[in-house]
Amino acid sequence: MKIDGTHYRSIWREADGTVKIIDQRWLPHELRIVPLTNRKEFAAAIRDMWVRGAPLIGATAAYGVAVQMAHDPSDASLAETWDVLHETRPTAINLRWALDEMTRVLKPLPAADRATAAFKRAAEICDEDVETNRQIGLHGQELIREIAAKKGGGRVNVLTHCNAGWLATVDWGTATSPIYHAIEAGIDVHVFVDETRPRNQGAQLTAWEMLHHGVSHDLIVDNAGGHLMQHGEIDLCIVGTDRTTAQGDVCNKIGTYLKALAAKDNNVPFYVALPSPTIDWTVRDGVAEIPIEERAQSEVTHVQGKMPSGVVGQVLICPEGSPARNPAFDVTPARLVTGLITERGVAPASAEGLAAMFPDRAS
Amino acid sequence: MKIDGTHYRSIWREADGTVKIIDQRWLPHELRIVPLTNRKEFAAAIRDMWVRGAPLIGATAAYGVAVQMAHDPSDASLAETWDVLHETRPTAINLRWALDEMTRVLKPLPAADRATAAFKRAAEICDEDVETNRQIGLHGQELIREIAAKKGGGRVNVLTHCNAGWLATVDWGTATSPIYHAIEAGIDVHVFVDETRPRNQGAQLTAWEMLHHGVSHDLIVDNAGGHLMQHGEIDLCIVGTDRTTAQGDVCNKIGTYLKALAAKDNNVPFYVALPSPTIDWTVRDGVAEIPIEERAQSEVTHVQGKMPSGVVGQVLICPEGSPARNPAFDVTPARLVTGLITERGVAPASAEGLAAMFPDRAS
Repeated sequence: MKIDGTHYRSIWREADGTVKIIDQRWLPHELRIVPLTNRKEFAAAIRDMWVRGAPLIGATAAYGVAVQMAHDPSDASLAETWDVLHETRPTAINLRWALDEMTRVLKPLPAADRATAAFKRAAEICDEDVETNRQIGLHGQELIREIAAKKGGGRVNVLTHCNAGWLATVDWGTATSPIYHAIEAGIDVHVFVDETRPRNQGAQLTAWEMLHHGVSHDLIVDNAGGHLMQHGEIDLCIVGTDRTTAQGDVCNKIGTYLKALAAKDNNVPFYVALPSPTIDWTVRDGVAEIPIEERAQSEVTHVQGKMPSGVVGQVLICPEGSPARNPAFDVTPARLVTGLITERGVAPASAEGLAAMFPDRAS
Repeated sequence: MKIDGTHYRSIWREADGTVKIIDQRWLPHELRIVPLTNRKEFAAAIRDMWVRGAPLIGATAAYGVAVQMAHDPSDASLAETWDVLHETRPTAINLRWALDEMTRVLKPLPAADRATAAFKRAAEICDEDVETNRQIGLHGQELIREIAAKKGGGRVNVLTHCNAGWLATVDWGTATSPIYHAIEAGIDVHVFVDETRPRNQGAQLTAWEMLHHGVSHDLIVDNAGGHLMQHGEIDLCIVGTDRTTAQGDVCNKIGTYLKALAAKDNNVPFYVALPSPTIDWTVRDGVAEIPIEERAQSEVTHVQGKMPSGVVGQVLICPEGSPARNPAFDVTPARLVTGLITERGVAPASAEGLAAMFPDRAS
């Protein structure tokens, strides 16, 4: 999407062949674009979260393999690259998928052909992600258009949580793609951005996306969404998901469940946008079956931001010595989800709904 | 309650006659106790939030009148003190009540008798607040005791929001009084403390209370409570309230409504602790009738804490230029409230329940 009028992706290859990314560690306070020139830099970019978001991690890994193939296209180099990049974030499904896919394409080729083929496949992986999110956006755009029509063309107010934006993908984002598409179609959209404690991805990334693309928005604390819904200030919610179960339960950033409850209580539609590979067909009951990661206490006891000096740092918000609990995700039961916006269309959040849209994958 | 083993109130008179308070602006990073020696200092303490919480503001104003009477007990001085202290926080109901009460008691007396009578009545106002909260605590303690019994004496996990603690009252607090009483009765209680963005009163004040009184607790982000309830980690919620309607709707710090929804969805009892003067018998439908204050955007875009330098300051958490919305309170409908813990007992959150417990006040 756009940054102050210029179109960017979150990862791209320059005309001279250099792969560049936005180093997201500096957002929202500074836009830093950096080249990734060797495998070590790609590994650091993934491990140290210069890039984040499942699709973008996969795309970055694909380009990491390509850059390494240009340096050393041997079988040993290919195998070692899988290991080196995989261990940067061993639980990331997209990372593993991208590395397997690159290996599948490159392994049968003569070493001399691998670099060219690798850059080609990495570019395709990026383009496929963009196309998936574009389709999600077109399907979601229709939902926003219907609400706008009901309101007689009035402003449509969307609430979103965390960052399922273009910075988490190659472009468009998942939850944000319907918003960007609606705006391109001339619909008046306003976005309420949950700050999304503890890591504040809403405040740091989604608000930054909205501000620089030129989308009307307001940052709100995670506590505020229920009140806004009670007073008719939100027309629909769209969030992303890390993992969707075969029956339509949605595992997403902590706090998503609370917003879904408020949406249900106030008859506000609650949609989840997802590329279909995030559906885990082996899991049904998300609350019972999905183990939730507990992250460092310091994420709760401290908040990162720009200090009066201009330096970015962390402040302690509680007394020294208070312990904290930090579950990173929660599960929103399918009964609270109005629909799942996928690249194939909007599916009901149910085993039947998902199986009907993905008969080729549902078991 | 206790601070590292020593009992404190939030305001008290020393043996030498000096009135002292905890200057709460420095919490949780520093405990500063300051004397208030003249009317100007009392006015500053209330206006600039060295003290906060409705009951404590009232008690502080009462002592402010007493200190002024010792300096100048004239009619003019009494009237002027009402004006000077009232204008510090003109919307605070308890402040106005305390000033009216002091005037009622002092006006008929000869000037020479006023200082003594004023200190006596101010001390009574403090003691009355302590007794009200003690009664709330005893009634609430029974609820915790019942849950502990059901769990075979196991640990009772309580979630609380914002600070309805002893720092907001003279002692005990409202929502915290059942917790402190249960602990004194030997019940094993653990408290999950919502940080309560935007102003983080949970992290800054409730966590500090718990830590220094020696209560087992964990700080959590406001997003986490729903997940903990889904997984049986919370046995009951107890929150305070700024205003309760005649039908039992509860206006409290923003985000309370979201926790009440999660409690309902998971069959977790949701109680509200309140001294009966916070019931507004003139209002019925809280969502429709209570106007919600919108506070400064900077409370959302910035977070206060202790910087690495040790200095307390504010950090910017979003891009410079993103606007924010900041509703300060929300209304939890009575249908989500299990019961109202008052000084007379636990009332059902309904017009009938409140009228039956307060037949002398309900209209």
